[in-house]
Amino acid sequence: MPDLNLILKKIEPSPEEKTRVENLAKQLIQIINQKAQREGIPAEAILVGSVAKGTRLAGKADVDIFITFPLSCSEGYIKKKGLKLGHHAIKKLGNGYEERYASHPYVTGFINGYEVDFVPCYAITEGRELKSAVDRTVLHTRYITAHLKANQKGEVLLLKRFMQVVGCYGSEFKVGGFPGYLAELLILEYETFMGVLEQAAHEWRPGYQVDLEAYGTASQFNDPLVVVDPVDEKRNVAAALTLQKMAEFVVAASRYLDNPSPDYFFRKDKKIDTKTLKEEFLSRGTVNLVLTSPAPEIPEDALYPQIRKTEHSLMKILKRSGFRVWGSDSVSYQGRILIILELEVNLLPPFKKHYGPQIWNRVHSRSFQEKYHPHCWLEDDTWVALVKRGHTTAESLLKYVISPDGIHHLRTGRHLKDQLINGYQLKALPEFLEEEKPDQKVLAWLYHYLHKDELPGDIY
Amino acid sequence: MPDLNLILKKIEPSPEEKTRVENLAKQLIQIINQKAQREGIPAEAILVGSVAKGTRLAGKADVDIFITFPLSCSEGYIKKKGLKLGHHAIKKLGNGYEERYASHPYVTGFINGYEVDFVPCYAITEGRELKSAVDRTVLHTRYITAHLKANQKGEVLLLKRFMQVVGCYGSEFKVGGFPGYLAELLILEYETFMGVLEQAAHEWRPGYQVDLEAYGTASQFNDPLVVVDPVDEKRNVAAALTLQKMAEFVVAASRYLDNPSPDYFFRKDKKIDTKTLKEEFLSRGTVNLVLTSPAPEIPEDALYPQIRKTEHSLMKILKRSGFRVWGSDSVSYQGRILIILELEVNLLPPFKKHYGPQIWNRVHSRSFQEKYHPHCWLEDDTWVALVKRGHTTAESLLKYVISPDGIHHLRTGRHLKDQLINGYQLKALPEFLEEEKPDQKVLAWLYHYLHKDELPGDIY
Repeated sequence: MPDLNLILKKIEPSPEEKTRVENLAKQLIQIINQKAQREGIPAEAILVGSVAKGTRLAGKADVDIFITFPLSCSEGYIKKKGLKLGHHAIKKLGNGYEERYASHPYVTGFINGYEVDFVPCYAITEGRELKSAVDRTVLHTRYITAHLKANQKGEVLLLKRFMQVVGCYGSEFKVGGFPGYLAELLILEYETFMGVLEQAAHEWRPGYQVDLEAYGTASQFNDPLVVVDPVDEKRNVAAALTLQKMAEFVVAASRYLDNPSPDYFFRKDKKIDTKTLKEEFLSRGTVNLVLTSPAPEIPEDALYPQIRKTEHSLMKILKRSGFRVWGSDSVSYQGRILIILELEVNLLPPFKKHYGPQIWNRVHSRSFQEKYHPHCWLEDDTWVALVKRGHTTAESLLKYVISPDGIHHLRTGRHLKDQLINGYQLKALPEFLEEEKPDQKVLAWLYHYLHKDELPGDIY
Repeated sequence: MPDLNLILKKIEPSPEEKTRVENLAKQLIQIINQKAQREGIPAEAILVGSVAKGTRLAGKADVDIFITFPLSCSEGYIKKKGLKLGHHAIKKLGNGYEERYASHPYVTGFINGYEVDFVPCYAITEGRELKSAVDRTVLHTRYITAHLKANQKGEVLLLKRFMQVVGCYGSEFKVGGFPGYLAELLILEYETFMGVLEQAAHEWRPGYQVDLEAYGTASQFNDPLVVVDPVDEKRNVAAALTLQKMAEFVVAASRYLDNPSPDYFFRKDKKIDTKTLKEEFLSRGTVNLVLTSPAPEIPEDALYPQIRKTEHSLMKILKRSGFRVWGSDSVSYQGRILIILELEVNLLPPFKKHYGPQIWNRVHSRSFQEKYHPHCWLEDDTWVALVKRGHTTAESLLKYVISPDGIHHLRTGRHLKDQLINGYQLKALPEFLEEEKPDQKVLAWLYHYLHKDELPGDIY
């Protein structure tokens, strides 16, 4: 049993770091509020997020400052004035900025080694006043600050860190895991880190419900895990959690309880050897193809749904064409996307069996025969035809699916489509390794594809 | 539109042949009845079957004489005395005999080029008195003789011949098709040959019911086609008809109606060329294996269920082991059985994916992990493991399934088992053709496997 206090010491920010970031936040808020007052802007900056809640892990360099406006202001006004106030603060203390866009525009400043987000939003007091998703963040910060006991902050840190290391942390599309706010709510519900693991390991099932404020709305949601937002009864905080990640967390929890180890809190940076990796792939005897393409320049959270959609559509097309797909994975890295596809065999016969209607549907039965006779026959009362297969190898099929004259059958993303058509490459895995000499991050991604039962390590 | 009367002329026995067989039957009955009277045996021989009903096709050489006893006699008695009377008749006129066994023992005599079956049975007047399946034959003969109009006999002949040529005639296990009595009942129901085809083509569906005597018992049966026996309300005359053969008949009927041709009444004896056949198999790009074995010396109707069971069990084992089976067929011929198995590919990877429990079943989830860790992972909430495949080729798997030390996993027949273990051979189809130089019958069987949409021709 590892000493959780000892672990906590290593994963929580040092008192100096805490003071430093809190002072920085105070300073920035002061700058903004003074400026607003001077200019007669009815805005008030407040600190939100994990810094405000005291649930920030060491090493995380994000500070979230929300600039709140009364509901009477127009959206155009708060955007213009909010961003202006943000820029002002960055100019005073920072050394660079980037304008970004979530459901809402905001500006990020790089200040003393921190990434500080300045987000204009409405000052609301309950969920039903909500105009945009970011408005809710203020309510979340307030709820957690009000309810989380001082001694529970460490529990949150342990849980978040555990989730990170087992690969389940983060609600972004790339992961589909647990958002930080969800981790905090779970600690409110189950008191401690160990309490969450116990419940997850023994009690959770698909559709499991947590409803801290007893709104009674949990049954309205049809998600793997339902945690009703204490500040908005119409929202499931776990909506973005996939069944896969919920299941992975449950398994990790139950393994930790069986065999607690500090490994669950500290990532090991595994050195992957290309030659060993290649041999391991070859020993599976399957066909592994790597498709790469330049990534469009859009935020990760917009890109990942497009990558996954492409990956799943490729799998579906391969399956529909008679190839058995063992698995696949995809990743965006350094301006490229990479998709690995693993197939049972590469070469299929030049013909395939095509199943048709039952003979009792006289109309369809007739047209099936007209189309396929004499290359059709009955299996029990169902028509089957022998038809020429368009592509006997997966490579040939994929080269048709994405070809210079456009895509065929593939469902991909709006931004990804042109990048694929103009810049994709398809290689067998051994060639990919030899020719591209991918770096440790890509090797780790491939290694994790083969070793899903290991802790993911430093690949996220 | 072929002239059905002209066709009928070719398929019905000539007047001379009719007279000859009727006279022979009368003579045999007289011999038996006189002998019975002389010896004080309370038996009466009667002519049954297609000769008695006037529904015999030309060239068929079977005569059925049933030796009926009162219900008061013991089974031992009627067996002993009945067989004795049969032997007596054969001795008088015939040149050889064979004792046989269906659900009941009987003796077959070879007399003037005919095969005459002498079958001891009880004289019953209705179905409920039935002691054995053969007793019913007398009632069937009586029912058809009483109800079939003279001009309908030709309709029965056309229907039977059509069924023969399209490969659907005969209730024996080898075919699983329409028995002669069923063909007769269908003519009683629909009046004419064309009437049967019309109904089959347009109206039949699985579960279709015919109930000539309006017993109202048809819904008790769960067979593809239900024709309540007019002499036994508890029996479905179509019980042995498979869905496959019913469907084939429906398709043949509807094709004949679209495009009537004398081809449906006269088999063409196709000359099959080994080289062409081999090329055709090779061009499919599939893997074709032929398994042969000596056949045990048991009647065909006892052998076929064992062959089919073996064939289906082999397919199931191959499928379960990850091989995609495109099709199979089996036949018994000249003291051997032959099974063809067609597979999509021969070689599979040395590992396979093995699906386990969902993680929510905590007990099974734990034991699955204990067994497979670290070679297991989650797909959504379901466990999957990578396990070594026992056999990477179908040939190696089959050689394990039937090996000199016994059979593994295979469900086969009691009589076939030892023959398989001691005498089976497994060859790829090209080798089989080259090394065994099979005769036209076997070639026709293989040809029909590839050309199921053609009339089966002279292979049954």
